[in-house]
Formats: sequence, C-alpha cells, structure tokens
Amino acid sequence: MQSSKREGIAGGGENEAFDADKIASALSRALRDGDTGAIEQWIDEELAADVAEALTELEPEQAGRVLALAGREPRARIFVYLPRNSQLEAVAAMAFDTVAALVEAMPHDERADFFKALPDDQRERLLPALAGAEREDVRQLASYEEETAGALMTSDYVTLRRDMSVADAFAHLRRIAPDSETIYNAYVIDDDRRLLGVVTLRHLLTASDGLRVGDLMQKNVVHASVDDDQEAVAKIIARYDFIALPVLDADERLVGIVTADDAMDVVEAEATEDILLSATVNPIDDSVGRAALGMLYRKRIGWLMLLVFASLATGMVLDFFRNTIAANMGLLFFLPLLIATSGNAGAQAATLMVRALATGDVVAGDWLRLLGREAVVSSALGVTLALAMLAIGLIHSGPSIAILVAVTMVTVVLVGSIIGLCLPFALSRLNLDPATASAPLVTSLSDVGGVLIYFGFAAMLLPRLG
Amino acid sequence: MQSSKREGIAGGGENEAFDADKIASALSRALRDGDTGAIEQWIDEELAADVAEALTELEPEQAGRVLALAGREPRARIFVYLPRNSQLEAVAAMAFDTVAALVEAMPHDERADFFKALPDDQRERLLPALAGAEREDVRQLASYEEETAGALMTSDYVTLRRDMSVADAFAHLRRIAPDSETIYNAYVIDDDRRLLGVVTLRHLLTASDGLRVGDLMQKNVVHASVDDDQEAVAKIIARYDFIALPVLDADERLVGIVTADDAMDVVEAEATEDILLSATVNPIDDSVGRAALGMLYRKRIGWLMLLVFASLATGMVLDFFRNTIAANMGLLFFLPLLIATSGNAGAQAATLMVRALATGDVVAGDWLRLLGREAVVSSALGVTLALAMLAIGLIHSGPSIAILVAVTMVTVVLVGSIIGLCLPFALSRLNLDPATASAPLVTSLSDVGGVLIYFGFAAMLLPRLG
Repeated sequence: MQSSKREGIAGGGENEAFDADKIASALSRALRDGDTGAIEQWIDEELAADVAEALTELEPEQAGRVLALAGREPRARIFVYLPRNSQLEAVAAMAFDTVAALVEAMPHDERADFFKALPDDQRERLLPALAGAEREDVRQLASYEEETAGALMTSDYVTLRRDMSVADAFAHLRRIAPDSETIYNAYVIDDDRRLLGVVTLRHLLTASDGLRVGDLMQKNVVHASVDDDQEAVAKIIARYDFIALPVLDADERLVGIVTADDAMDVVEAEATEDILLSATVNPIDDSVGRAALGMLYRKRIGWLMLLVFASLATGMVLDFFRNTIAANMGLLFFLPLLIATSGNAGAQAATLMVRALATGDVVAGDWLRLLGREAVVSSALGVTLALAMLAIGLIHSGPSIAILVAVTMVTVVLVGSIIGLCLPFALSRLNLDPATASAPLVTSLSDVGGVLIYFGFAAMLLPRLG
Repeated sequence: MQSSKREGIAGGGENEAFDADKIASALSRALRDGDTGAIEQWIDEELAADVAEALTELEPEQAGRVLALAGREPRARIFVYLPRNSQLEAVAAMAFDTVAALVEAMPHDERADFFKALPDDQRERLLPALAGAEREDVRQLASYEEETAGALMTSDYVTLRRDMSVADAFAHLRRIAPDSETIYNAYVIDDDRRLLGVVTLRHLLTASDGLRVGDLMQKNVVHASVDDDQEAVAKIIARYDFIALPVLDADERLVGIVTADDAMDVVEAEATEDILLSATVNPIDDSVGRAALGMLYRKRIGWLMLLVFASLATGMVLDFFRNTIAANMGLLFFLPLLIATSGNAGAQAATLMVRALATGDVVAGDWLRLLGREAVVSSALGVTLALAMLAIGLIHSGPSIAILVAVTMVTVVLVGSIIGLCLPFALSRLNLDPATASAPLVTSLSDVGGVLIYFGFAAMLLPRLG
C-alpha cells in the first residue's frame, strides 16, 4: 500500500507491500560496503515505523550503526517504534551522551515508558544527565500507575490563556508547533493550570482576529483523571471521536493529554488481553513469535493446572456412576457430544457477555433481563440439537436411549448456557475481570453438570424406559 | 468523567458519569410540560454522542420531537450517533423534506451507510430529493463493497494545488474549514485528481508565506485502494499513527479519506468479531442485549450442530474401546481431565496464533518456526501436568494407571497444542478466517485424539504393566 518510487536500499515499486526482510538485507549490504549515503537517504525518505521494523530484522550492532546515521530528531522518532527489547539492546550499545540526547528528543509519554523499562542502574545514571525540565517531566510521568490515564498521557500539549486574542494564539501555536504532540486541540487554563476550555485549530482558523480565546473556547470539557483506567479513557475518545482527551490531577489541574493514536493502541491491547484470557492465556507483553519460551510456559501453566483439578470433579462423577455405565456401555457413545455441547453453548453465552460488558453494550445490572433472553435462546438451541440426537439415537441405540439423550441434551444446553451467562456477571460482582470466564473454564464447569445430568437421568429413566 | 455544571435537563455535577436513563426521564418530563426552551438549551450544551444515547432511551415518537427541536446541523451530528434501528424509526416519523435536509447535512461516509440501510422504496424517493452533488456523492460512496476502504471512507476532505502559495492555501482552508471532516491533512492533487502529496496544517502553520504547497508537501504518500479490506486500512492508520489515510481508485485518483476515528471503530469491531468467533458465535451487528432472539439463535446453532457431529467421532472411539473400558472401569476417572487438558492446551496455542495473525505479530510463513517453539513449550506444560497426575494416579489407582495417565498426559498436551497451533495457519492457507480456529473447534478435534491415545495406550500398556 506504500506508494513510492524508491531507489537504493528499498528498491520497491508502487503499491508494493513493505518488506522488512528485503530492506534489512539491503541495509546490511550497505553497512558492509560503507555506503552510508544510501542509508541516510533511505532514513530520510521512509516513515519512522517502517525504518524501525527493518531495524528489528538486523543484528543489534548493525541496528545501532544505522540509528547512529540518523539525525537527532529522526532517531528519536524511529526509536519509539522499536519493540522494547530492541530499544534496550540499542541503548546498551550507545555512548551515554547519545542516550541522554535521544531521551530528550523522544515524545514525552514514550520516554517515560522507556525510562520505566530501563534497569535501575541505568535509570539512576540517566536522570542527572537530562536537562532540568526533562528530568522533572520524566520523573512525574513515570510515577503514575501502569494502565492509568496518567501512564498513558503525554505532557506535551498546547495551552492558551483566555485573554489571548486569536492573532496571539496563532502566533503562539506557530512558535511551538514543531515540538508539540498535537496542536489541533489547545487547552485554555488559568493561573493554577485549571482547565477552563478547549479551542480547536479549526475554530481558531475560522475566527476573526479580534476575538479572544475565552470567547471562542468550548467550556465543560470532557476529561479524564490521572487514576482513571486506560480502558475507560480509550472508550471516551472512541465515543466522542476526539483527537485528544485532557487529563486532570486530583486538584483538577491539567497535567497531560491522551491522544487518539494511543487510545487506538489501548483498544487493540485490551482486545488482545481479552482474547488471550478467553483461552486461559494470561496477558503477554511481547510478540508471541519472539517472547521467551519460559515466559510463555508461565503464562499458560497456571490455568491448565487449575482446570485439571476442575476436571477431577467430572472424573469423580463418572466414578460414582460406574455401575450405571457398566450396565449400559452404549451410554458412553453419547457422552462426548453431550458434555461438549453443554460446554460449547455455555462458552457462547459467556463470550457474548464478556465482550458486551467490555464494550459497554450491556452493564452488570442487566443480568437478569439477559438471563431471561438466554433461557429462551438456549432452550431453542437445545430443542434443535435434541431433535438431531433423537434421530441418531434411534438409529444407533433404540428408543430408550434416544429419548434419554434428547432429554439430556435440552437440559445440558440450558444449564451450560446459564452457567456461561452468569459467570461473567459473578466475576464482575467479585471485582474480577469478567474476561476470566473463558471457554475452557465454562466448559469445565458445565462438564460436571453435564455428566451428573446424563447419568442421573440414565439411572432414573433407563430402568423405566426398559 | 464529564465535567459540566449542567442545569435543567441534565442537572449533573462535576465528574458525574453520563446517566442516559436519568436524562431521558427529564427530557420526557420537559416534553410533557412543553418546556422546549430547556430541551433546546440542553442540546446546545451536550455532546452529540450523549444526546444520541439519551434519545435511544425515549419512545421513537418522543425522540423525534427532541430531534425536531435541534437545528439542522446539530440534528445531523446527533443523528449519526444513533444506532441504526433508532435512525430508521426516527426518519419513518419525519416529514420527507426534513429527511432530505438531514441527509444533506450528515457527514458523507455516515450518510452513505445510512442510505444503504434504508428500505428500497425510501432510497428511491430520497435520491431525487437531494441536491445534485450530494446525490452523486451518496450514489458513489454507497456503491463500494461492505468492509472495504471504499465503504469506510468519506469524500469530505481538503485538496490543494501544488502551485498554491502558503497564504492561498490558508485562505482556502479557512473558507472550507466549517464543512470538512478534517482540515488537519490536506491532499495535493493534479488536474486528474492524482495524489501528489500531503500537507499537514501543522506544516502550513510553520511555513513562510512565500513558499508554495508543492515545496512543502510530503511526497510518496502512504495510501489505500478502494477495494482494500477495512482491517488492513485500520492497521496502516494504527501503525503510522495517522490522522487520516487517503484512498485511491483503480485509476490512482484520490476518491476519499479514512479518518482515525473510523479506524478505531474498525479495530474494535474486528476484535469483537474475532472474540465471538473464538466461542463459535457468528458476527452480530446489533447489541446482544437488544438483538432479536431469533437472530441470536441463528448465529449460534450452526457451529453447535457441526460440533455435535465432530463429537460423534469421539463417541465412536469410546465405543471401539468398550472392552478395554469394561475391563478397567477405573480408567474413566481420568478420562475427563485428559481430554479436557488436551483441548485446553490446544485452545491456548490456537488463540495465541489467531490473535498474533490478526495483529500482524506473526505471518503465515512463520508457522514452522512457531511449531518448533510450541513443541518445546507444550512438552514442558505436558511434563508438569503429568507429574501432578502421577501423584494423583498413585493415590487413586496405583502405579500402572498412574504411569499410563502420566504418559498419556504428555502426549495429549503435545498433540492438542500442535493441532491448535496448526489449525489457524491451515485455515488461513485455505483463505478462511484463522479466527474460525475457536476453542470449541480445537477442543472437539483434540478430544478425538485424546481418547484414541488414552485407550490406545491403555490397551497396549495395561496388560504389560500388570
């Protein structure tokens, strides 16, 4: 999708997909041949995100040499797109002055995150090497708890005074435009940095020069607090289609803004977290193709072990019905499909609720109404599946078992669905993440119910049905 | 998080969460009392998304009366935030002229989507009532296939000529600012509407007045084509942190832009789709709390029925080993945990791959390397779980079954994980959505394997172990 007539390093044509591998080999060659001109030109022409991706394909030492060829500003822009590991490898190979200069040039939010990721000793060396304002800024931004508005925001925003004229505001924006994360929203504050309003560049552009900022600004600005969860912040930005959302501290003072591009990353990261949890994988920070194997093991073993013990309960129920089964070995044929279907219907119900709670489509208070709806839908599902089983049962095992299996099917689908629907709400009531109601957990729980119901019905019905 | 000192309808205080129910009752009261002034003031002060949410809590007739009190522009802004059903109900109650005026005032991309959702007869009446340019625009935008860049984009963007001076460009932006979706990116085109470059308002602001647009513009603009998948478009916008992405037609002419806020909606919608698919629920357009029950039934029954038949295979394997089981009824105790664990490990592996493929963290070509990594991780998982089972087996059933269960555990975890890892890649190779590799599907497939392995080992080992 990248349209460019590249020469030299990249050599791609119009609309050719970005190929990091190919570019990395070309970079490698240019480094070997000492063709720094070609590399400099390439950095100049490429987007920072693309340069960063190509660098991750190089050896750390080579990537460091390429970064060294970029100017101060482009280097910082490229650096923020590198994965955390590559960042840490790159600075490990850099001269100390270069690191300090790099950190000073980085966007404020990114550099605070990077700072937090540095080993203790490097953090302690780095802070004194930064200019005073930068040092205070890094310290401040790095102090907020992970996954809050404070940790997500940047301190790099534009402020205006209410008594400024439109012409003055323009002159101010023009002066600081090159250094600010966004200039399209400017925040109007008083002497105590309290937020009075917001002015968009669009409004400034169409306002007559004589007006004052205070006349133009929108008051009652939607905002977040530093401690708000990042997910809530992203939801507000998505809801109102904002470019940025101002963040206030406990004293209602403006301390930062969260930009829409960071909100989009949050939406994606939170979705990834929920999707992995849906299969009992705890959140992974790194790419799955690159993450340490030991870490992947640790993210998976906990739930697997827990679920093994949950399944022991199902085993105990089977043990309990040993005689019923021994007397009717044909029952085993239908066991897998009955318990699997119960779990599958439950997983459907749970996942529908987990996602709807995450996107705000439903709220916890809706559970009773939703339970009623689920009872109707899952009964219909159960009856449909029971009819199919009745046919198979008649062919495979005769009328008694066919009736038993059909009755069981309706019951287990209903029970599984109700377990699946209620679990996310119960977790949320206990202040746990509803996304913990994963398909495997719901399946394990409904397995016990399914086996109990099946063989319970069998013990009751079969002697009568004959 | 909404900070506002509202009076009248809303009456909320600082930092009070938006409460649509409460506001809807106040609106209802004001309508009954004929207090249109309070309603007009409320519409004026609230954000369009909030007004829309409150309207969805009202009866369609009341919502229509509130909308009628809003001016032409605010009405269009509010209207686009209404869920599709409410939109259709609202226009059904409006005079025909009002509908045409409303459609003319809507953002171009939203009105094309709305137009597509109208019943045929209303579409045919509406088109001739629109002004010429609007009519052509709606027809054009509505013609693109769903979920493509063309269907997502708006035709409401700013273009400049390369020979314009910076001052002229500013004057032009100032003139059209009130009516454009975004003015922060302006696209430079030639006489054939071919895209030459892009200029940001930030660059214009800091450029000296004498320069020409052609000197300032960034060339080689990253762009999408009208037929590109919306997911790919959203990925580009997220990757480069763009505010908007230009869209070209087959002749490389600029025909629209996709804005970042629409890209964020796509990221969220695609995540929802993948999450629901992960539990075998087909994509649902509506809120799960509001959707028709028959529709919810249809979105779930297909996979449930298919998986029942997959489970029949497991039943057949159990049937096949009937004698082995009858001779060792104690084996049943361990059956649920062995097949559940195999499926759970497989679901973990599958979900990790599905999400990594969706976010671009891994690509299809990586599968062999990832298989090697998965073999290592799942062997470690299997051995850990086997040790736990060895202990339980020794206590519950003695050494022969303990060894059998431990050996089976290592094998089924490995087999389940490999099935789980390979399935998304296989689906992607077949041009199917990798997200179809849901936990329930993986579980069903590894159930067959698990039962075969367990009783196969039992038939082989138990006679020897004693």
